[in-house]
Amino acid sequence: MRIEIVTIGDELLLGFTIDTNAAQLARALAAVGVEIVHRTTVGDNPGDIAGAVKAALDRTGAVITTGGLGPTSDDMTKASIAAIFGKRMIRDEAIVAALRERWARYRRLGPFPESNIAQAMIPEGATIIPNAHGSAPGIWLADEAGRWVAMLPGVPREMRGMLTDELLPRITQRMSADGSGAPTVVRSRTLRTTGVAESALADQLGDLASGVDGLALAFLPGVDSVDLRVTSRGLAADAADAALERAVVKLRGAVGRFVFGEESADLAEIVLKSCRRRGIRLSVAESCTGGLLGARLTAVPGSSDVFVGGVIAYDNSIKRDWLEVSQDALEEHGAVSEEVAVAMAKSIRARMRTDIGISITGVAGPGGGTASKPVGMVWVALDGISSEARCLRLFGTREEVRQRAAQAALDMLRRALETS
Amino acid sequence: MRIEIVTIGDELLLGFTIDTNAAQLARALAAVGVEIVHRTTVGDNPGDIAGAVKAALDRTGAVITTGGLGPTSDDMTKASIAAIFGKRMIRDEAIVAALRERWARYRRLGPFPESNIAQAMIPEGATIIPNAHGSAPGIWLADEAGRWVAMLPGVPREMRGMLTDELLPRITQRMSADGSGAPTVVRSRTLRTTGVAESALADQLGDLASGVDGLALAFLPGVDSVDLRVTSRGLAADAADAALERAVVKLRGAVGRFVFGEESADLAEIVLKSCRRRGIRLSVAESCTGGLLGARLTAVPGSSDVFVGGVIAYDNSIKRDWLEVSQDALEEHGAVSEEVAVAMAKSIRARMRTDIGISITGVAGPGGGTASKPVGMVWVALDGISSEARCLRLFGTREEVRQRAAQAALDMLRRALETS
Repeated sequence: MRIEIVTIGDELLLGFTIDTNAAQLARALAAVGVEIVHRTTVGDNPGDIAGAVKAALDRTGAVITTGGLGPTSDDMTKASIAAIFGKRMIRDEAIVAALRERWARYRRLGPFPESNIAQAMIPEGATIIPNAHGSAPGIWLADEAGRWVAMLPGVPREMRGMLTDELLPRITQRMSADGSGAPTVVRSRTLRTTGVAESALADQLGDLASGVDGLALAFLPGVDSVDLRVTSRGLAADAADAALERAVVKLRGAVGRFVFGEESADLAEIVLKSCRRRGIRLSVAESCTGGLLGARLTAVPGSSDVFVGGVIAYDNSIKRDWLEVSQDALEEHGAVSEEVAVAMAKSIRARMRTDIGISITGVAGPGGGTASKPVGMVWVALDGISSEARCLRLFGTREEVRQRAAQAALDMLRRALETS
Repeated sequence: MRIEIVTIGDELLLGFTIDTNAAQLARALAAVGVEIVHRTTVGDNPGDIAGAVKAALDRTGAVITTGGLGPTSDDMTKASIAAIFGKRMIRDEAIVAALRERWARYRRLGPFPESNIAQAMIPEGATIIPNAHGSAPGIWLADEAGRWVAMLPGVPREMRGMLTDELLPRITQRMSADGSGAPTVVRSRTLRTTGVAESALADQLGDLASGVDGLALAFLPGVDSVDLRVTSRGLAADAADAALERAVVKLRGAVGRFVFGEESADLAEIVLKSCRRRGIRLSVAESCTGGLLGARLTAVPGSSDVFVGGVIAYDNSIKRDWLEVSQDALEEHGAVSEEVAVAMAKSIRARMRTDIGISITGVAGPGGGTASKPVGMVWVALDGISSEARCLRLFGTREEVRQRAAQAALDMLRRALETS
């Protein structure tokens, strides 16, 4: 099946909002064998919306739109598309009731806003696509010829939920029903690496860097990781899975020591699982990351059985008074030093009575660097199952240095857990 | 001037990477009066790249590409575009030297990777666009007829730096040189609000919600804020600025109490500035946010003169032993309660000897909710210039609840600083 996407919103056209929905849609649809053949972005203008959707319908007969379903006056998707199908707009009382219930549950100020009612107007004969994550429902509108438009909200978390819960089942059902389902699929596997530069990874991969057994290999560098994504096209589902499995084995053979997980694996989640299995409890002492490492760990649901807490020792007085770092060490070696990092890790472990303590102290920049301690120099230390400290030379913006430092601390812990 | 954008990469086409560059480019170019008339995305395929760039050149004669400049084999932008212009590829020794120097500075493993050399091949006669934030330089290639292509890397932080530092000056110079510069501009002003739902904001705005004096108004909801963006089109620069200023005054008149800043203002930065002006020092005690509030504050360069540190009291034992929360309070009221939030704020303020202590304790979910303390219930407390505690009912995913809680704590502090 071939589908077109129309993303709607002045803010997209002007670049004020990043079009995350287009990527989400492409990825989810490719995984079930749908091909996205065209993507258009238009502003909040009824004529432009109708023009783009009509042109797309004429080409493929299957269109997904995002955006313009909200309660405000710049939301005009439904009426514009209803006009293409020759439908009038009617008020759906079930939506009105759901909106009122939702408002009562979450309300922060005053009575139910009447502008919300716009969200309850739908084209006659349309099917409502429930929105579990927000107030604006989606709309499915089809005609006798089998042409259809699915209208989803522009808010990414709402769009995502409706795509998975409602739209994909509907589309795959259509594909099997009308026999247009592609016999081949586009499938990928991803290996996530950290602590290695993209170019060094390519060198280590040698010939594999240009593709594995005819499967395309992409390098996807992120702030704190480089993902290797191998993609199979043109194969049936079973053959694609087998080819990808063989490719993953080869890639792991070459660069496995940098791989911390697959697909969307989160290093914090991996580390927490490994600790949980062994009954290990963690604490952290953070200086330049200011809570980022704790935030990474506690972002994972259920982290409370492993992660106990920590101290954000941003000012040196906190390192001294709360983490038993001696004034001598601070004066002699400076706050960014092996001695201070080690003392912080040992102290937080002992004082929070955990099995492992992790510490981070460094120069995140942009100011504060010196010749001997430049911006990007970060000490990470671990005390517990093993005792180690490592000096990192990170580059990037302040936030990138901080994110990379937190990631490096998690990776040090992952390696320590693997080898002890 | 009219420009086309071609973004390159299999991962964009398949949706594995979000196309942030397209938005960045559109926004920066619109601000100087350039109109983006077409956007195409193609995969890492020489034929597709050449086809898309050639078509774009034929339409407007001015094209910006992103992606495909890196050291790996899926990076083939330069050669594909050189072919369109009939140029051969040559090795640039200055780039080789810069790559070697950069590698020496940041290297983590082994010798200089030879695959890096691909980044030093450029089309003959091309101008190098320096890349201050990464290893792959950009390329500017023009012909006698004045048609040009600017090739930028796909890594967003690299693309952004080169756009601002190198490409925009080059484009604005061309616009004034060839007289094609538009006499009108597209300009926007943004008011950032927090603590209010989009629909409630629209109600408070009344008639203004559909536009201010003929200027378009967009509602841009984020995880922890709703931005109001008013946009002027078709006016000369001075008239646009004046019209926007009048619109901003009207918007502030209607919903100013929710506005914490303008443009890309960060609430943490605003709060830190306000504290700095008054010599106020801060500490935090975090439970469900696990360090996120500290991370928000320390993300701001120079925060160390205001922010001293904090305790991540994730486990109740840390609340008791490190923050003087009594076992009785924990047992009688539970960890998510006004009593515990207030005790945490008072204790961290006193024990870290700061002027203000802020605390957060709540149920981030997805598990752990009860009938009386559902997921999304968060207590935020402040001790210092004023003493207050507030119970929030937040919705969204675990991470959204946490981000909204940290933002609400910062906003509580902002309001307290304003009124005391």
